[in-house]
Amino acid sequence: MAPASKKTMCLATTVGLGLVCSVVAFLLYFEPPSPVCPSTLADVKNHKDVIPDEKPLVMLWFWPLGVKFDFKACFTHFKIDNCVLTDNRSLYNQAKGVIFFHRDIAGDLKNMPQEPRPAFQKWIWYHVESPTNTGRTPGLENLFNLTLSYRREADITARNELTIRKTELKEDFVLPNKDKVVCWIVSNNFQVTGTATRENYYKELSKHIKVNLFGTAFTEKRLSFEEYYSTIASCKFYLSFENSLHRDYITEKVNGPLVAGTVPIVLGPPRENYEQFLPSDAFIHINDFPDAKSLADFLLFMTDAAYMHYFEWRKFYEATPHLLSVYNEFIQPICLACDHMSRDVNYNVVHDLYKWYTT
Amino acid sequence: MAPASKKTMCLATTVGLGLVCSVVAFLLYFEPPSPVCPSTLADVKNHKDVIPDEKPLVMLWFWPLGVKFDFKACFTHFKIDNCVLTDNRSLYNQAKGVIFFHRDIAGDLKNMPQEPRPAFQKWIWYHVESPTNTGRTPGLENLFNLTLSYRREADITARNELTIRKTELKEDFVLPNKDKVVCWIVSNNFQVTGTATRENYYKELSKHIKVNLFGTAFTEKRLSFEEYYSTIASCKFYLSFENSLHRDYITEKVNGPLVAGTVPIVLGPPRENYEQFLPSDAFIHINDFPDAKSLADFLLFMTDAAYMHYFEWRKFYEATPHLLSVYNEFIQPICLACDHMSRDVNYNVVHDLYKWYTT
Repeated sequence: MAPASKKTMCLATTVGLGLVCSVVAFLLYFEPPSPVCPSTLADVKNHKDVIPDEKPLVMLWFWPLGVKFDFKACFTHFKIDNCVLTDNRSLYNQAKGVIFFHRDIAGDLKNMPQEPRPAFQKWIWYHVESPTNTGRTPGLENLFNLTLSYRREADITARNELTIRKTELKEDFVLPNKDKVVCWIVSNNFQVTGTATRENYYKELSKHIKVNLFGTAFTEKRLSFEEYYSTIASCKFYLSFENSLHRDYITEKVNGPLVAGTVPIVLGPPRENYEQFLPSDAFIHINDFPDAKSLADFLLFMTDAAYMHYFEWRKFYEATPHLLSVYNEFIQPICLACDHMSRDVNYNVVHDLYKWYTT
Repeated sequence: MAPASKKTMCLATTVGLGLVCSVVAFLLYFEPPSPVCPSTLADVKNHKDVIPDEKPLVMLWFWPLGVKFDFKACFTHFKIDNCVLTDNRSLYNQAKGVIFFHRDIAGDLKNMPQEPRPAFQKWIWYHVESPTNTGRTPGLENLFNLTLSYRREADITARNELTIRKTELKEDFVLPNKDKVVCWIVSNNFQVTGTATRENYYKELSKHIKVNLFGTAFTEKRLSFEEYYSTIASCKFYLSFENSLHRDYITEKVNGPLVAGTVPIVLGPPRENYEQFLPSDAFIHINDFPDAKSLADFLLFMTDAAYMHYFEWRKFYEATPHLLSVYNEFIQPICLACDHMSRDVNYNVVHDLYKWYTT
């Protein structure tokens, strides 16, 4: 890296601190998971006192992985208030939509409702893991009416997406202070859950350039929300390597560096698929280079001016921080499903769920 | 057919007349195509006086096939008023979405905007014909942000769909008076535009059962809106044969008999694809039978009780009449695109349009 002047360093530190502060503020803004306020019949009735009757009732059949949150979050965080969420199974016959978190079905159809489904009711399959990490339960193939997934062609798509700025950003982007070139955070034991592709590429790449490693796959320490973003911000490039390769399976591993002000180096589906969701100059794809050595050379010899081009998109778009805890990551998809049910009035059936999910 | 009692006949005639009347009323409810009121800058400004600023401006770049309609129809017919439509190209730089009707591009990119696209603006590809009948223009493959099509996985899907009844229908369905067994209306010269499949199947079927033919492919007479529905209603079965076979390409040819109270016999994509949009017992699929003779026998020897089972779905769902004139058929997709733009805030690009459309 070119040596930075004192002024630039000061500016960068300020921006870095600002970033950390906003992240902390954002975190605090989210109410803590306890006290948890699952809706009850009384809640729903109170709700109904002030809302028109046409707001559909949407039932969350399982709290995903048992993690509860306050349904009010849909309004406070996503401005969604055209539907009423409940977890009260005694309201089953009134629910227009019922959301089933795939992993909580746990391979046992007895965990699903045993009463008949009312004709007006839709069952929503909620699953955001990749096909590689999807358990198959016989009997689920033709049971649902709607899909809620990261896939673009799902009925309800839940992703971390760039949003279009209302007005073009006039100020120049100020780069966070960088003291590392390439970083990688891996939380899971990557030898267990990952496909070989990313590990092999990492091994080859690390022969030609230093890769700074973080996360519980490498160290004892689990990064906090603030540490996650500030760690990524301190690197010029970040390895956004997906654990398995599937169309549209482009996760928060890319969103992290885009939020932090770092260039993601992506390994996942082909570049064209990334370009459906991100401007072509917002990231580096490993397939842009014949091999890991060429990529390493490209990173090491990039000029500052060339580097800054990777942030041009910020004039027109912005990235929203994704939430790190299990508690938070389930909220958005559930709110989106609720919102969808306020508009969904048509006959709809999903056939051959797994085939759809894996092709 | 079993002989009907006088009472049943009278009831059937009443229902038939009622059907025709509602269809006429529906038709009259639609404002006539002239006077046409394309929006002007003044219109938009007046609009803006009473609507909040966040309603997006959506531009219709071409009037589809030159046919104009009043944008007010989006509110009067579909209750959509969260966006503002305009055809005034001088507002190009303010439009959040621009709709391009594929056929009107007419293979010439000079028919598209020549000014740069603002970063906040999305281009919407509007096309509802089948892949077989889709002209390809080089240069369009990577030009759009959103797709508007009959396909379920389009960004904006425009179809004739069954809607879920708010409350279960308690009255029994009264069958319209039937004096023919199988009917078929074909408007286009089917030897020109159709694939051989449907013509071959028709030829084989007509060896075993009489097929009553209507429409300009067979007679001089073009059916009016009322005649279309009353003709279909007078037949027990209707040949809903698509002109080409593609996933999700299930058109108004099926909606017509569902509205009229007649059982569609479908030829198109596989049964599973139909069942994504229709209850499995609402139609007969030609592939349910080994050959046309078996189908003919099935139709001829069906009991009245078995026949009535094909209308069970009406307790829970209802079919909405589709509009027959060129004038009307373009309205709904444009209104849906407008509505979509009021929620669409994310980065979105369509890559390899034709590949997407044909796979």
